[in-house]
Amino acid sequence: MFEVAELGHTVDKSAYKEKSAQLRTELLTIQNQLRGCPFPVIIIISGVDGGGKGEVINKLNEWLDPHYMRTIALSEASDEERERPKFWRYWRTLPSKGTIGVYVGSWYSDPIAQRVYQKSDDNTLQAELNQINQLEELLTNDNALIIKCWLHLKKDMQVKRLKQLAKDPATSWRVTDKDRQHLGLYDDFISVAENVLTETSKAAAPWLIVEGSDNRYSSLTVGQHILERIRRHIQRHEITVLASADLAEPPASQVEQYNLLDALDLSLKLEKSSYRKQLEKYQGKLNELSRHALAAKHSSILVFEGWDAAGKGGAIRRLTESMDARHYQVISIAAPTDEERAHHYLWRFWRHIPRAGKVTIYDRSWYGRVLVERVEGLAKAEQWQRAYSEIINFEEAMLAHGIVIMKFWLHIDRDEQLERFKRREQISYKQFKITDEDYRNREKWSDYQKAVNEMIARTSTSKSPWLLVEANDKYHARVKVIKAYCEALEKMLDEHN
Amino acid sequence: MFEVAELGHTVDKSAYKEKSAQLRTELLTIQNQLRGCPFPVIIIISGVDGGGKGEVINKLNEWLDPHYMRTIALSEASDEERERPKFWRYWRTLPSKGTIGVYVGSWYSDPIAQRVYQKSDDNTLQAELNQINQLEELLTNDNALIIKCWLHLKKDMQVKRLKQLAKDPATSWRVTDKDRQHLGLYDDFISVAENVLTETSKAAAPWLIVEGSDNRYSSLTVGQHILERIRRHIQRHEITVLASADLAEPPASQVEQYNLLDALDLSLKLEKSSYRKQLEKYQGKLNELSRHALAAKHSSILVFEGWDAAGKGGAIRRLTESMDARHYQVISIAAPTDEERAHHYLWRFWRHIPRAGKVTIYDRSWYGRVLVERVEGLAKAEQWQRAYSEIINFEEAMLAHGIVIMKFWLHIDRDEQLERFKRREQISYKQFKITDEDYRNREKWSDYQKAVNEMIARTSTSKSPWLLVEANDKYHARVKVIKAYCEALEKMLDEHN
Repeated sequence: MFEVAELGHTVDKSAYKEKSAQLRTELLTIQNQLRGCPFPVIIIISGVDGGGKGEVINKLNEWLDPHYMRTIALSEASDEERERPKFWRYWRTLPSKGTIGVYVGSWYSDPIAQRVYQKSDDNTLQAELNQINQLEELLTNDNALIIKCWLHLKKDMQVKRLKQLAKDPATSWRVTDKDRQHLGLYDDFISVAENVLTETSKAAAPWLIVEGSDNRYSSLTVGQHILERIRRHIQRHEITVLASADLAEPPASQVEQYNLLDALDLSLKLEKSSYRKQLEKYQGKLNELSRHALAAKHSSILVFEGWDAAGKGGAIRRLTESMDARHYQVISIAAPTDEERAHHYLWRFWRHIPRAGKVTIYDRSWYGRVLVERVEGLAKAEQWQRAYSEIINFEEAMLAHGIVIMKFWLHIDRDEQLERFKRREQISYKQFKITDEDYRNREKWSDYQKAVNEMIARTSTSKSPWLLVEANDKYHARVKVIKAYCEALEKMLDEHN
Repeated sequence: MFEVAELGHTVDKSAYKEKSAQLRTELLTIQNQLRGCPFPVIIIISGVDGGGKGEVINKLNEWLDPHYMRTIALSEASDEERERPKFWRYWRTLPSKGTIGVYVGSWYSDPIAQRVYQKSDDNTLQAELNQINQLEELLTNDNALIIKCWLHLKKDMQVKRLKQLAKDPATSWRVTDKDRQHLGLYDDFISVAENVLTETSKAAAPWLIVEGSDNRYSSLTVGQHILERIRRHIQRHEITVLASADLAEPPASQVEQYNLLDALDLSLKLEKSSYRKQLEKYQGKLNELSRHALAAKHSSILVFEGWDAAGKGGAIRRLTESMDARHYQVISIAAPTDEERAHHYLWRFWRHIPRAGKVTIYDRSWYGRVLVERVEGLAKAEQWQRAYSEIINFEEAMLAHGIVIMKFWLHIDRDEQLERFKRREQISYKQFKITDEDYRNREKWSDYQKAVNEMIARTSTSKSPWLLVEANDKYHARVKVIKAYCEALEKMLDEHN
């Protein structure tokens, strides 16, 4: 597949001068248009050593307006990055809507290097490529434009290039021992690269293979490609906006009406004295277990969802009471900030992924996409429908990093909710918790119920199941939550002993 | 000064139960009020080992609503933190307006520990305390509420406490070798602490010394203190808002009309051929120097200010053309995001401080406070007037970390500006750069001139001077900028060789 990039393409100096001047004008013009568009542009420049990645990137920085683009050069991970799932460093650097991010050293670098150096096998590589495809699909589904360029060199050209670089004192520092070592692995590298490029060239995010032997040629080709991709993407966006009124929503999903919630026994309760005893027992246990988890650097992510007034806050409090405040944080999901709105909807949850050994408790979460955003029409049907698998992939990334994930649905019935609303209105420091909106939401109980049922059915996986908590009785609910977390921690610590 | 906290205060269980229940209600109520206030609450819990810092913090987390507070536990710095000025890790964790941040391990921890372990001397400690005072003053001037609590223990109590902790299997893990070592240094610790507390107790940010031998007593005392401070601060805020219409602005500063700008020789120019030669020379030099700086892990911060159309972008481009895009970023200062607005105005510049060896170029900067914000009335007189020293302290923190700072003022005259505006309107990809606002700003030329003159006079320090660039001729300006940066890098590299 690389033959097309071994033909010896070159551009002479005067042609280059003329073409690059025109290209620059066009790029600046399109970049200015892009600023008003609700999607980011993600450019990945990858390829063989000596293929001129650095030169191309510097040219892009010269042509484009650096105010609205950023070059993201990721080499070795920092300790803050190593303590999180591997994609965290990419999420934190993703460009915001209307801007361009150029990645040198992207999510492709490690999987390729690992395989070439035989630190991973074909199956591992394949699994990683699947994750990459999922990530890119998630971004392009959100309208991100992903442009991937691969700079190729023939074997003899690579040798020549590196010799040239090594000879010139101004560039010799760039040739490292690793490059020389890499040279001996040219054939392996090409074969791995071919596999990677084939597996990850998708309609929405295809690879462009560019001959890298002549910098003028490769820069112009990459620049021209970027210009065209952005131009087409803006056009497509404009057409979609114009047509959106006419576009039929995809048919509502044909999921039958599950009755998981109705099956819960809401009469379950605990007497106060028994509650006290059990709470004390599990709080003591949690205190110890969470210390061990911290020492062993196992993080936890706890997700609380449930009806308004279902007692999420109270359950969270019974957990945190027995934990050290230095090691957990409670994230309350309210309206997104404008920086959050300028990214994929999962971005604001990635931000709070805990460091090694720490705990993040989400009071409401990414499940808002398939609950409130679905019911209130804040997300389009296609958006919340694809969110199920996006969420599963997101959680799998946590699990793969050894993070304990617990998802609690606190369930009460409609009558109990009304009573609690009324009781809250009596308590001075809880009054602010009840607004007209709460009463309005009650009206949509059955829509929400449908959404909850479908959410649980679709996102309860064996490794990350939903725990449905009968919460009409607060005592029962709190003990069930803390006990479940204790058991999960115990299990995890056992497995790692 | 610690005698007040050696009296053996205790609170019995039943009194505690009653008082803590009431305190909790009051704290939740005030916290709810706080959410609408335009200032953050910064709580620092510090004190002797065994003084019960952890217990107090856990109690606060129990009493307050964890959704709008965060415990910031900073122990060892991450590599990303070590590569920045020492206050960076505090800036990045500062609570936003309307929320509470509780620091365990604050800016006090290191200076105290270093002095106790004799790794620093009195003068160093004093210098650090000055920086702390400056930081706290900067925050309180911006209406932040800073609450500082010191938990004290008598010497014999500390011994007893640690023994208790060590005996109980549930707490023995908390007693580290460091604690035991610390114990032998009790007297030194107290004497250093006394010095620190005295030097940093200011009217706006006083220390509260609390006896730490009884957890119930200390938690209640700290909680009560926090409640009262927040309550008073909200009251004061409300009064200020009500009265603000009547409050006279402080008198305009009596700085005489400097004529630094008028003294510039705007006729300076370079012929094209000479420009080409010199540009090539210095670009080559910069390429090499910036590589050395990267290898030596010396970062740079370049600030560009100047009249509209003075050629900032062009000058920046001539710099970046010869630098590796992987190692610099250009930050364009436009309207702040809402996350930025929820913090001190310097926060959004701290965010972009480069890692070791990297370069951040600010196209417009924190000087907006004393330029556009002053002239357009976006900052109050007291705000922009105190900004001069805030900025100097900010830059000193960078300098102390070994960062090279360059500040360029690109100067053109009014006629030249008009001509450039008109020329820009002719060029398709530059049209968007000219708006009606640009013409409006021209009307205020003399106000801006006054502000620029005062800015330069007040913030040109010997270590971080302004470089005034005659920019009527772009060639001259660009060469002057790149040459100056080369010289600064050369000097810095020489000094470190």
